[in-house]
Amino acid sequence: MNTSSTIVETSLRVRYAETDAMGIVYHANYLVWFEVGRDEYYHQTSVGYDEVEERGYLFPLSEAYARYAAPARYGEMVLIRTRIKESHSRSVTFAYEVLSQTTGETLATGWTKHLCLDRRGHVQRIPDFLRQAWKRCDTLSNPEAPQ
Amino acid sequence: MNTSSTIVETSLRVRYAETDAMGIVYHANYLVWFEVGRDEYYHQTSVGYDEVEERGYLFPLSEAYARYAAPARYGEMVLIRTRIKESHSRSVTFAYEVLSQTTGETLATGWTKHLCLDRRGHVQRIPDFLRQAWKRCDTLSNPEAPQ
Amino acid sequence: MNTSSTIVETSLRVRYAETDAMGIVYHANYLVWFEVGRDEYYHQTSVGYDEVEERGYLFPLSEAYARYAAPARYGEMVLIRTRIKESHSRSVTFAYEVLSQTTGETLATGWTKHLCLDRRGHVQRIPDFLRQAWKRCDTLSNPEAPQ
Amino acid sequence: MNTSSTIVETSLRVRYAETDAMGIVYHANYLVWFEVGRDEYYHQTSVGYDEVEERGYLFPLSEAYARYAAPARYGEMVLIRTRIKESHSRSVTFAYEVLSQTTGETLATGWTKHLCLDRRGHVQRIPDFLRQAWKRCDTLSNPEAPQ
Repeated sequence: MNTSSTIVETSLRVRYAETDAMGIVYHANYLVWFEVGRDEYYHQTSVGYDEVEERGYLFPLSEAYARYAAPARYGEMVLIRTRIKESHSRSVTFAYEVLSQTTGETLATGWTKHLCLDRRGHVQRIPDFLRQAWKRCDTLSNPEAPQ
Repeated sequence: MNTSSTIVETSLRVRYAETDAMGIVYHANYLVWFEVGRDEYYHQTSVGYDEVEERGYLFPLSEAYARYAAPARYGEMVLIRTRIKESHSRSVTFAYEVLSQTTGETLATGWTKHLCLDRRGHVQRIPDFLRQAWKRCDTLSNPEAPQ
Repeated sequence: MNTSSTIVETSLRVRYAETDAMGIVYHANYLVWFEVGRDEYYHQTSVGYDEVEERGYLFPLSEAYARYAAPARYGEMVLIRTRIKESHSRSVTFAYEVLSQTTGETLATGWTKHLCLDRRGHVQRIPDFLRQAWKRCDTLSNPEAPQ
Repeated sequence: MNTSSTIVETSLRVRYAETDAMGIVYHANYLVWFEVGRDEYYHQTSVGYDEVEERGYLFPLSEAYARYAAPARYGEMVLIRTRIKESHSRSVTFAYEVLSQTTGETLATGWTKHLCLDRRGHVQRIPDFLRQAWKRCDTLSNPEAPQ
């Protein structure tokens, strides 16, 4: 098992479409935001997830968890901090923290676990170009870590 | 151009996920409900749209229009009435009316225009099995219409 | 802590809107389906959740978990089985199972934990009309259970 | 009736959540993107729409129209260009163009018409702070226009 200390940040403004009749962001949309964070993680550390799929690999979710700490509201700027919590040979778990950019308050935390599949739906080893990219950026962000 | 007098009805209960911070159904979700109505139209008059796609035909939207008359709220039962407004050799336009099932009030009306494509994205004639099904159910619902 | 053996079932047809570019239902939509199941649980055992809110109680999520076992596809009929996994004085946890209605295969399982709040956002005891309704239907479904 | 030549641009990366089983962006999400463009229009020309609501004004949609020219795909960067097509004393119509940022190709165009309401749902004149802001930025962007 590998863990990684690289944290990738991205921010977004809450859309009206994402709110519900309670006046706050509908809970399922945090999973969409986790995806936005994960997407940025791919972009900043290796290649976009669109290119990962073009190379023949899919990373569907096998599990998802979210903990809601405080509500987000329309118009608010939120920050999503994404890191790899665990990576194994055939699966990877991303962890997320969603914060209010105004107050710094944590709005939600969570994680998603993904299996690496090929196009026929068979479980595969995570390809080297991803594994090395994730390892490299980890070393850069934490230069004194033993390799 | 053909018009059709067959009207297919389906109902649904408004989901919390479909509301927004104004306390009413978010406007884009009416297009999703139009799809629910269209889906039922395919099921009741010919074959499910899933089978249409399996047979190699796609009907992506080329245009959509919605007029919002009154808001829908969480928990409400709504009725969707769907009919074919116009069908041409290579396109079809569905029209929709969304009503409150409690009050009978019209909540929204609209239409969507669809092109008939094959899997490579080329425009095609609407296949006979759809054309005939739509014509047949029209004759049934309007037996005195000239054929 | 109370558990309940009452299971409420509801079914739905997968909407095109709920699918993603992998050709399967987008993972966050399972949380929406959990809500559809929970909604039906309220309706069948006590009053609709809309009426719960009208009486001044809100049950926002504090946690959510989903485990994805097999993909759901457009047009498929799915069954959602909902039960109360745990209820405490101020919180309730619902558990869900989503199955393919065609094959009976489990597509996903999960749970959501909810706090009972009043309109000002303060944590409250779950009101008696809900607590008793949930207890009553439990007794009915499991008549030999000690009360 | 007033028209405006101010065009406000904003861009976004297509989310996986926004795609459907056709492998392209689900059509209803263009209305959400129109909202993202409109939101940015409010921000750049006057105050955020969240503040408009805080001041007691709501602008629900009375009509929406979209024309789909070419599909958008996951991972793509799209540009949304928003302008005021028409403003009357009690309603405003925004027009939108969605383009691929890579190719410059138009993906969709459309418009949404909004009524100005107060919190009780009564139709109101568009407040001066909005009317003047929209007029001012129009003058700036088109300095030779007669006032």
